[in-house]
Amino acid sequence: MRQVAILGVGQTAAREHWALSLRQLAVQAGQAAMAAAGVEQVDSIYIGNMTSGRLNRQRQLGALVADHLGQRGVEAVKLEAACGSAGSAMRQGLLAVASGELEAVLVIGAEKLTETPFKETTAALTTAADADYEIIHGVTFVGLNALIMRRYMHEYGYQRHDFASFALNSHANGAKNPNAMFQTPISQRTYEKGRVVADPISLYDASPIGDGAAALLLVPAEKAPTAARVIGSASATDTLAIHDREDLLWLKAAEISARRAYEMAGIGPEDVDLFELHDAFSIMSALSLEASGFAEPGQGVRLAQAGEILPRGRIPICTMGGLKARGHPVGATGLYQLAEAVLQLRGQAGEAQIEGARIAMTQNIGGSGATITTHILQRP
Amino acid sequence: MRQVAILGVGQTAAREHWALSLRQLAVQAGQAAMAAAGVEQVDSIYIGNMTSGRLNRQRQLGALVADHLGQRGVEAVKLEAACGSAGSAMRQGLLAVASGELEAVLVIGAEKLTETPFKETTAALTTAADADYEIIHGVTFVGLNALIMRRYMHEYGYQRHDFASFALNSHANGAKNPNAMFQTPISQRTYEKGRVVADPISLYDASPIGDGAAALLLVPAEKAPTAARVIGSASATDTLAIHDREDLLWLKAAEISARRAYEMAGIGPEDVDLFELHDAFSIMSALSLEASGFAEPGQGVRLAQAGEILPRGRIPICTMGGLKARGHPVGATGLYQLAEAVLQLRGQAGEAQIEGARIAMTQNIGGSGATITTHILQRP
Repeated sequence: MRQVAILGVGQTAAREHWALSLRQLAVQAGQAAMAAAGVEQVDSIYIGNMTSGRLNRQRQLGALVADHLGQRGVEAVKLEAACGSAGSAMRQGLLAVASGELEAVLVIGAEKLTETPFKETTAALTTAADADYEIIHGVTFVGLNALIMRRYMHEYGYQRHDFASFALNSHANGAKNPNAMFQTPISQRTYEKGRVVADPISLYDASPIGDGAAALLLVPAEKAPTAARVIGSASATDTLAIHDREDLLWLKAAEISARRAYEMAGIGPEDVDLFELHDAFSIMSALSLEASGFAEPGQGVRLAQAGEILPRGRIPICTMGGLKARGHPVGATGLYQLAEAVLQLRGQAGEAQIEGARIAMTQNIGGSGATITTHILQRP
Repeated sequence: MRQVAILGVGQTAAREHWALSLRQLAVQAGQAAMAAAGVEQVDSIYIGNMTSGRLNRQRQLGALVADHLGQRGVEAVKLEAACGSAGSAMRQGLLAVASGELEAVLVIGAEKLTETPFKETTAALTTAADADYEIIHGVTFVGLNALIMRRYMHEYGYQRHDFASFALNSHANGAKNPNAMFQTPISQRTYEKGRVVADPISLYDASPIGDGAAALLLVPAEKAPTAARVIGSASATDTLAIHDREDLLWLKAAEISARRAYEMAGIGPEDVDLFELHDAFSIMSALSLEASGFAEPGQGVRLAQAGEILPRGRIPICTMGGLKARGHPVGATGLYQLAEAVLQLRGQAGEAQIEGARIAMTQNIGGSGATITTHILQRP
């Protein structure tokens, strides 16, 4: 299996993009990645997207975006794994290049969530959970995460305000990212005043949905000796229905995919300089840190409280705002994470730069932990 | 790139499955393929499906089906390219095995279209076309195909009844397939009496939607020396909007993908013993034959009229009923085609058996030709 490098990166700002359609967002990010790589013709396009069939009345995004990108005729397909769609698209793009059959592969994550009534958007997002065993009872997607957070608090003796460090870090970091939806730091007091969305999840424990697209151009590593390379890649699954998990507080798919990615890279968590994790909800940040080997069970929150997730901490997370402040255009998020990781490794993260970043890890989560893809990138 | 073999095949009947949910259909086909291959643990699962997010209120099918198949934890993802979803899933499963990273990959196509009101199902299916430039005008998916057929008739001087040979062949062949939705041959007179759905497309020019699932288990060819192997595989795209095509009557993506598949296999159309093509509408059969090198432009209908598409003809098509008689559970269809091709190569096609079949080709079409995947299989 040959190694893969990331030759170009592109992204739109994460926003409510009232003037841009889904295809336009995808094309902007794709064009930017191709231009950055100096590549005019690709062999294949992989699109990560969750809700276009319902919210944009549009399927077959692969062919559609290929055409609008000036790549008519090229192989293209859409991948879907709920909020983990873009991570899955990256994984398949990587395997395609690794197979030896394809030489230049464009991977795009794109989502447009804000042109439909909020109720319809919410209904589309709940399809990330199990329709027959969860959604049928009327629980929402936030509600499922609230159940997990409540159990975590009970099991490990935390209060709601103990989770503040995650939101404070993400918002402080988002303030340094011109593509972030929210660019204003928040205080502990603001966090504590956040209204409750689904007890115990407050406004500042939940990431905002948005519109946006991010893209990477992948080539065989031997063709791009100075580009960041992918040294670890793995994807794993768990039950959609959270009541079926062996342990409600353990992201098994994060553990499996992180372990495999570490093995492939020949490194351990101690070697990772920054970790773009999937902070859709602050409880997910804690669970992701624990399952990926950065904290013992129940200690993810302590790690955050000790400041170790800050830019100068032991393991900086969400360095350009994370889902919480950069925004969460669901099917695009996994590629925003990867794009940000590449910028960090190249020393192009501006004010958000983590000094001396050499190895970056990303983890994209579909649903409440059902599809998790972990990637590890290395500076050239 | 290493070669890939098909070790196991599974399918449910194509039907209105009132008693089986989408996940149950997928699991039945997947289990059958695994059992047939004697494999209890797979490395990855690829699911082709078009409409589950809208019609079954369920996304993240990869993880869901992996769990219900007893493969919890395994890598899994869904692929979507409208009616070409399953062909795309096969293509990615193939690249995954070819990459050298994965050893046993399960590819499933599954679709459940009949549990929702017909109007909602139709609305979901129209998303295969361009929402902004086609659907917005109120045209249906059948309507778009009717425009293409009308132009073909005008350009080459055909009448409606000239297309009958396609329907007669598919229904005669479906009568020999116990998994087909329709198992009764039809006459020329029946064809001519078919009521018009969208002029000039009549009931017998259009395939029936349905529920169903089909699956293949893929392994490296060196591990299965006696299994059918994939000797050609390619996918290509074209515009979704048919008015943007260079030539309305030429399936460019079929031409590109067939040419690449032939090159990879080192063969030409004259070497193909049977062709499972995508007869969603009879006009698509003609265009597919022409773009894939079996007939000159405008001569696909003549080839059918001359009996060359019949089981004993020069290029037998839709040998187990095709979409027209086996049924068209859209996101599953590409894998039904492949499953049927494997049965033919193994000499297990029962009454539908094509004598001495050595090389089989399949072609799965998304939309009105926007995503087309072609595979060529060879008998061990």
